Amino acid sequence: MSWEALALVRRIRLIVEYDGTQYVGWQIQPNGVAVQQVLGEALFSITGRHCTLHGSGRTDSGVHALCQVVHFDIDVPMAADKFCYALNTRLPKDIRVLYSDEVDETFHSRFSVIRKSYRYTVQTGPHDRAFTRNTALHIHDSLDLAAMERAAAHVLGEHDFAPFMAAGGHVQSTVRSIYRSQWTRQGSLLHYDVTGNGFLYRMVRLLCGGMIDIGRGRLKEEDFIQSLQTGQRCHTAVTAPAKGLALARVEYADLDTKDILDRLR
Amino acid sequence: MSWEALALVRRIRLIVEYDGTQYVGWQIQPNGVAVQQVLGEALFSITGRHCTLHGSGRTDSGVHALCQVVHFDIDVPMAADKFCYALNTRLPKDIRVLYSDEVDETFHSRFSVIRKSYRYTVQTGPHDRAFTRNTALHIHDSLDLAAMERAAAHVLGEHDFAPFMAAGGHVQSTVRSIYRSQWTRQGSLLHYDVTGNGFLYRMVRLLCGGMIDIGRGRLKEEDFIQSLQTGQRCHTAVTAPAKGLALARVEYADLDTKDILDRLR
Repeated sequence: MSWEALALVRRIRLIVEYDGTQYVGWQIQPNGVAVQQVLGEALFSITGRHCTLHGSGRTDSGVHALCQVVHFDIDVPMAADKFCYALNTRLPKDIRVLYSDEVDETFHSRFSVIRKSYRYTVQTGPHDRAFTRNTALHIHDSLDLAAMERAAAHVLGEHDFAPFMAAGGHVQSTVRSIYRSQWTRQGSLLHYDVTGNGFLYRMVRLLCGGMIDIGRGRLKEEDFIQSLQTGQRCHTAVTAPAKGLALARVEYADLDTKDILDRLR
Repeated sequence: MSWEALALVRRIRLIVEYDGTQYVGWQIQPNGVAVQQVLGEALFSITGRHCTLHGSGRTDSGVHALCQVVHFDIDVPMAADKFCYALNTRLPKDIRVLYSDEVDETFHSRFSVIRKSYRYTVQTGPHDRAFTRNTALHIHDSLDLAAMERAAAHVLGEHDFAPFMAAGGHVQSTVRSIYRSQWTRQGSLLHYDVTGNGFLYRMVRLLCGGMIDIGRGRLKEEDFIQSLQTGQRCHTAVTAPAKGLALARVEYADLDTKDILDRLR
């Protein structure tokens, strides 16, 4: 396909949903297929352009996204709101573009983020379940939800989350502000919803690993809380597995993915 | 593995959940892998016994089950409530045994059924979605839900459902009683819940195909209602695709799968 040579360069923004089960995460990696790569190939196949796709943040291998926000610059004269339809004709069914629009060049999918939200899902009960096998962590043990809720309340506010960052994160500051941190039960599912101004590498999975171990009686609440209060690692807990985690909401000054998703019916 | 030669023959009942995407349905077929076959092989691998597995009914290729009820007769001295755990160690993750118990020889998973319920799920909106790609039918058109609800209300009661039976069904009577028939919206999903004393071959998918076409404005409500009232096919509509359908509940005199599933947390 060829476009007029002198089409203007515009910045296009997408909201992308993906089931991360089959992917090595958002970002291109040498060891498997990344969502960024599949999306870039679909964009090339409809426009003939190789574009750098910027996501609102990385998601790890196996982590899902209900609303990854992506931007790229492109010089083809396709209406901005048509990119989602065109891309979906070329993408696999586990990656969907739910929305597309044109934004100012001052917009950046990562740097313009005001707040992000993640959801971690645990499935409780004696048996792991067929329909949540890729989207929830099965915990056979009975969980003390009240203790998990108390721990979650301590996550709220501004903390140095250094004890909840995995090796591999490179950031200037490890201080982040958390505005929501809450467990809720829905049948045999437990959801942890967390909203913050930013998250360190594997921070949500490390917080969940700690809170789940508190729920199982394997970790003392005090040790977890002390890590939050001191910025020093005073607790031991494993990183919760990737498959329970989903990027759930991204908020910018001009766009809240929740508003767009709520309108999709 | 070998068991005492003189163990008593007992009848074991299972509640089985499956994501039907990868299977040709419940019943063994020449053209692919059936759930009945995979479950039988898992049972053989733990007991060394080839048993005939009786389901509460067939599910078509691609149809799901939240609670297929199965029984078989076996002479191994394993505690009845341990079959679910043992089978799950050998089954793929898209088939899970949620419950097992011992029943009297008068119990039959199919002939003892009092009521069954199915759920059909439609996903509305401009784009098909990643997380419901295998469990909901995507409809791009806007749907007239009020018209679909009116049609669903006419399904209630005793009718000759002959116009809603696909070729291939062999039954003495095509009269069935329907106790619940209702559409409800949940975000971008529309659920059709139907409960009856029995269902003809592809009856739910034929009812849904008709009601969805009414919602789209492609079928007149009167024609659909006339089919229900006369027992003659007075309407034209397609069979709704398998992937939106799930066997949702089976009720017996001594067991309601909903009670068991509600307790699994």
